[in-house]
Amino acid sequence: MKHHPQLDSSGRLTHLLSIDGLPREILIDILDTARSFVSVAERDIKKVPLLRGKSVFNLFFEPSTRTRTTFEIAAKRLSADVINLNVGASSQSKGETLLDTIGNLSAMHADMFVVRHSQSGAPNLIARHVAPNIHVINAGDGRHAHPTQALLDMFTIRHYKREFPGLRVAIVGDILHSRVARSQIHALTTLGVAEVRVIAPATLLPAEVSSLGVHVFTDMVSGLNGVDVVIMLRLQNERMNGELLPSAQEYFKIYGLTAEKLAHADRQAIVMHPGPMNRGVEIASSVADGLQSVILPQVTFGIAVRMAVMSILAGGQP
Amino acid sequence: MKHHPQLDSSGRLTHLLSIDGLPREILIDILDTARSFVSVAERDIKKVPLLRGKSVFNLFFEPSTRTRTTFEIAAKRLSADVINLNVGASSQSKGETLLDTIGNLSAMHADMFVVRHSQSGAPNLIARHVAPNIHVINAGDGRHAHPTQALLDMFTIRHYKREFPGLRVAIVGDILHSRVARSQIHALTTLGVAEVRVIAPATLLPAEVSSLGVHVFTDMVSGLNGVDVVIMLRLQNERMNGELLPSAQEYFKIYGLTAEKLAHADRQAIVMHPGPMNRGVEIASSVADGLQSVILPQVTFGIAVRMAVMSILAGGQP
Amino acid sequence: MKHHPQLDSSGRLTHLLSIDGLPREILIDILDTARSFVSVAERDIKKVPLLRGKSVFNLFFEPSTRTRTTFEIAAKRLSADVINLNVGASSQSKGETLLDTIGNLSAMHADMFVVRHSQSGAPNLIARHVAPNIHVINAGDGRHAHPTQALLDMFTIRHYKREFPGLRVAIVGDILHSRVARSQIHALTTLGVAEVRVIAPATLLPAEVSSLGVHVFTDMVSGLNGVDVVIMLRLQNERMNGELLPSAQEYFKIYGLTAEKLAHADRQAIVMHPGPMNRGVEIASSVADGLQSVILPQVTFGIAVRMAVMSILAGGQP
Repeated sequence: MKHHPQLDSSGRLTHLLSIDGLPREILIDILDTARSFVSVAERDIKKVPLLRGKSVFNLFFEPSTRTRTTFEIAAKRLSADVINLNVGASSQSKGETLLDTIGNLSAMHADMFVVRHSQSGAPNLIARHVAPNIHVINAGDGRHAHPTQALLDMFTIRHYKREFPGLRVAIVGDILHSRVARSQIHALTTLGVAEVRVIAPATLLPAEVSSLGVHVFTDMVSGLNGVDVVIMLRLQNERMNGELLPSAQEYFKIYGLTAEKLAHADRQAIVMHPGPMNRGVEIASSVADGLQSVILPQVTFGIAVRMAVMSILAGGQP
Repeated sequence: MKHHPQLDSSGRLTHLLSIDGLPREILIDILDTARSFVSVAERDIKKVPLLRGKSVFNLFFEPSTRTRTTFEIAAKRLSADVINLNVGASSQSKGETLLDTIGNLSAMHADMFVVRHSQSGAPNLIARHVAPNIHVINAGDGRHAHPTQALLDMFTIRHYKREFPGLRVAIVGDILHSRVARSQIHALTTLGVAEVRVIAPATLLPAEVSSLGVHVFTDMVSGLNGVDVVIMLRLQNERMNGELLPSAQEYFKIYGLTAEKLAHADRQAIVMHPGPMNRGVEIASSVADGLQSVILPQVTFGIAVRMAVMSILAGGQP
Repeated sequence: MKHHPQLDSSGRLTHLLSIDGLPREILIDILDTARSFVSVAERDIKKVPLLRGKSVFNLFFEPSTRTRTTFEIAAKRLSADVINLNVGASSQSKGETLLDTIGNLSAMHADMFVVRHSQSGAPNLIARHVAPNIHVINAGDGRHAHPTQALLDMFTIRHYKREFPGLRVAIVGDILHSRVARSQIHALTTLGVAEVRVIAPATLLPAEVSSLGVHVFTDMVSGLNGVDVVIMLRLQNERMNGELLPSAQEYFKIYGLTAEKLAHADRQAIVMHPGPMNRGVEIASSVADGLQSVILPQVTFGIAVRMAVMSILAGGQP
C-alpha cells in the first residue's frame, strides 16, 4: 500500500501537500465544502467562528504577497489568529535549521502552517516532523506542487461546467517550470476529465510529460481545437529573454492567447489564469477581459477553497 | 453639473479621494461623527463592532509606517479584519498592472482600500474601477491630496477654536510639494474661515497659488501677525540641501517657528504640525513642546477621524 | 530608598524593564500567573478576553522575528489588537527622534509597548516618558537585559526542579555580550538558588563579573560538575571568527556542550538554550535533541510567561 503523508490512518486529510496521492473523494469533499464558503464571502459579516482561538502561521520562505494575502483572508474569515512570518529575512539568516524553526513555532502551539518555499519538498519535510495536531498546507514549493491553486481551478471548472467527465482541458505555457501545471494535471486526472492537453514549445516541456497521461501539443491551433477549458500559465520574467525562448514578443505571437486562437476552442470554453498576468505576453488583454474569461472568479473561489481546506484540516464544519 | 467621483447619486460619500469637491455638509458630518469616536478611544475596551466581518486593505505603494498604523488602528477599533500590503515590493515588481492588482484584491471581497501612492491620482483611478460596494480612501497621493490629514486638522481646529468663521489660519513651509497643504486649503475654504494665509519662500510656492483663494506671504512676521492657527509643514529631507533652499539652518532662521516669531500670532493661537517633525528645521523644540502646541492631540484626533470616515463609508453609525 | 522605574508607588509592576531591581514576590507572582496560562494554550480555543480592546504595539527597532512572534501570539491569545512596527525602516530614517515616535504612538491611545532596541536603556527611556496608563515591556535592549527570556527560563527551571533553593545553575558561553545572561543571573540570585556559575573563555567574560555574585569558571568540566541546570548561550555569528575567539570549531571543542561534558553535571540535570541554536558550535545535536534537553518546552513556557506579564501589567486576572 502506498504511503499517504497527507492522510491519517482513517484516510482523513491531515495535511495538504500535493494533489498527487489524494483520492477523488477528498477532492470532491473540498470542492463541496468550498461551495458553502462562497456564500460566507457574500454576507455582510464575512466571518464564521470555525477556527476561533486557532493560530495559523503563514510561513513564507519565498515572498508572495498575493498568495499570502489569500491565506490570510481565508484564515481571518474563519476567525483564526494569523501570524505572518517572512522567514527568509530572519531565522534562516541566523543559521538556524528549517526543522529547528519549525520545532520552535510548533512549541508555540501552532495549529496550522501555510508554507511557501523555493525548495520542492520543504512542506513534506515539515509535515513529517510536526506534532500530530498540527496541519501543514503547501502554498507552493519549488517546481513541485501548488495544490490550493489546482483546487480553486477545479472549483472554477466545476462552477462553470458542472461535471468533469466529458471535458477537454488545455494547459498552455511553461509546463516545465510550473508547479501549478503539475498540480492541475493530477487534479484533472483524478476528477476524471475526458482529456488533458498541454501546449508548449518543446523547450518548456518536461522530459517525463507523456507519463502524466496528457496529450502534448506544440501547436496552439490544434491543441486548442474543441477544448472546453483553456488554462494559461504565467511566463516567468526570467524566461522571457533566456535560453529557452527567443523573446516575449515571439512567444506571444506563437503561444499568446488571442481572440483568433481562442476561436478554435469550443464556443462556450472558459479561459483561466492563475495570475499575476503578463498582458501581451501569454494572454491578450481582449481575452483576459473578455466574456469567456473567468480569471477574477478564480480569485474569489480561491478564498472559499482555502477556507474549505483549513476547516477540513481543523476538523470543523462550515 | 460637476462630476463628483466621491459621492453617489444621492450625494452620499462613497470614496474619500480629496477635500476638493466635497460639500461643507459632508465635512461637518465627518467631524461630528469623529467626535463620538474620540470617546471610544478613551474607554477601557476601545472597540466597536461597526466593521465586524469587513476586510480593509491597506494598500501602500509608497511606504509610510505612521500613516499605515493610524489606519490599521482605526480599522481594528472598528473590528474590521485588516490586511497590510506593501505593494511596491510584490505584484508591481512582477509586471502586473495597478488595475489587475486592484481587480484581484476586489475579487477577494475587499470592502475598503486605503491607498497611498507616489503618483497623484492613483486613488481616483482605483475608485473608478472598483465595484460599487468597495470604498477607496486616499491616504496620500503624490502632490495631490491627503484628505484624512486635512480632516483631522479641521477636527483639531474646531476642538480648540469652536467655530471656523472668524479664524485666520497660516500654513507655513513647503507649499509647492505638499499634498497636505493643498487639502488643508480646500478644507479651510469650504468650512468658511475668514482668511487662509500661506507663508513660504518664493521657490516653495506653486505657480497657481493665488488662484486657491489664499493670501501669500514670504515674510514670517507679517504672515503670522494676528493669526489664530499656525500650521507648520514638514520640510522633506530631499529639499534641505537642494536647489530650492540654501540649507536647513538658513531655512530655520527665516521660516522655522520660534517663540519669537510665534509671538506675532494671536496670544491664544494654536500650533499644528502633521509630523514627523524636523526639530530645529521647521520648528523649534520649545514651540513643539510648548503650551500652544496641539501636535499630539492632532494624532489622537486622527484615529477618531479615520474611524469616522471608515464608518460613514461603510454606512454604519457610531 | 532605591528608585524602581518598573514599580508604581504601591509596589505594583507597571513596566517590565529588567530583572535587576524586581523583588522576589513580583517574580513569583509572574511565574504563578504564567502557570495558569500554560493550560490556556492547550485548550481548543486558545484565547482569553483579558486584553480585549487593548492596543499592543510591537516596537522593534532591531529586527527579531522570533521574539516578535512570541509577543504577538501572547497578545493575540489575550485578545489584544496587535500592531507590528519595524521602526528602523520608517520614522527613524525620517529624522524623527525616538521620543517623538513614542509620543505619537502614545497619542494613538496605545496600551502597551513591547520594545526591542540595539541600544541599552532605550526601553527605560521610553518608560520614563509615556503616560501613566501605558506599560513598557523590554524585549531585549543592547547588552543590558532581556527580562521575559530570563522569566521563561525561571519558569522552566521551576517546572522541572520545583524549588530554587538548593539548585546549582551553570550559564555557559558569551557572558560578555549577553543580555540574556545578565537577566538570568539577576533572576537566579533573587530567587535564591544555591549557586550560579558562569563558564566562558576569559575573552567573553565581563570585567565586573565577580561583582554579580557568581562563580567563574573557564573550564567546562569543573564548571559543569554536579550542576542541576545547564544554560547554553548562543554564540553570535559575528564572534565566531573575530578577535575574541580562534574559530567556531575550536569553540565547540572547548565550550560546546557534548554528551561527554554533560556527563559531569548531575544525572537529572536539564539543558536549556534561548535559541536560535548553532548546532555544532555551542551545542551538539545529540544534546539539543536529547532526553535532558528542555529547549522546546522553554518556547512553550515563553508564551505563557509573556501572557502573564502582559495581563499583570494590564491589571487583569487569568
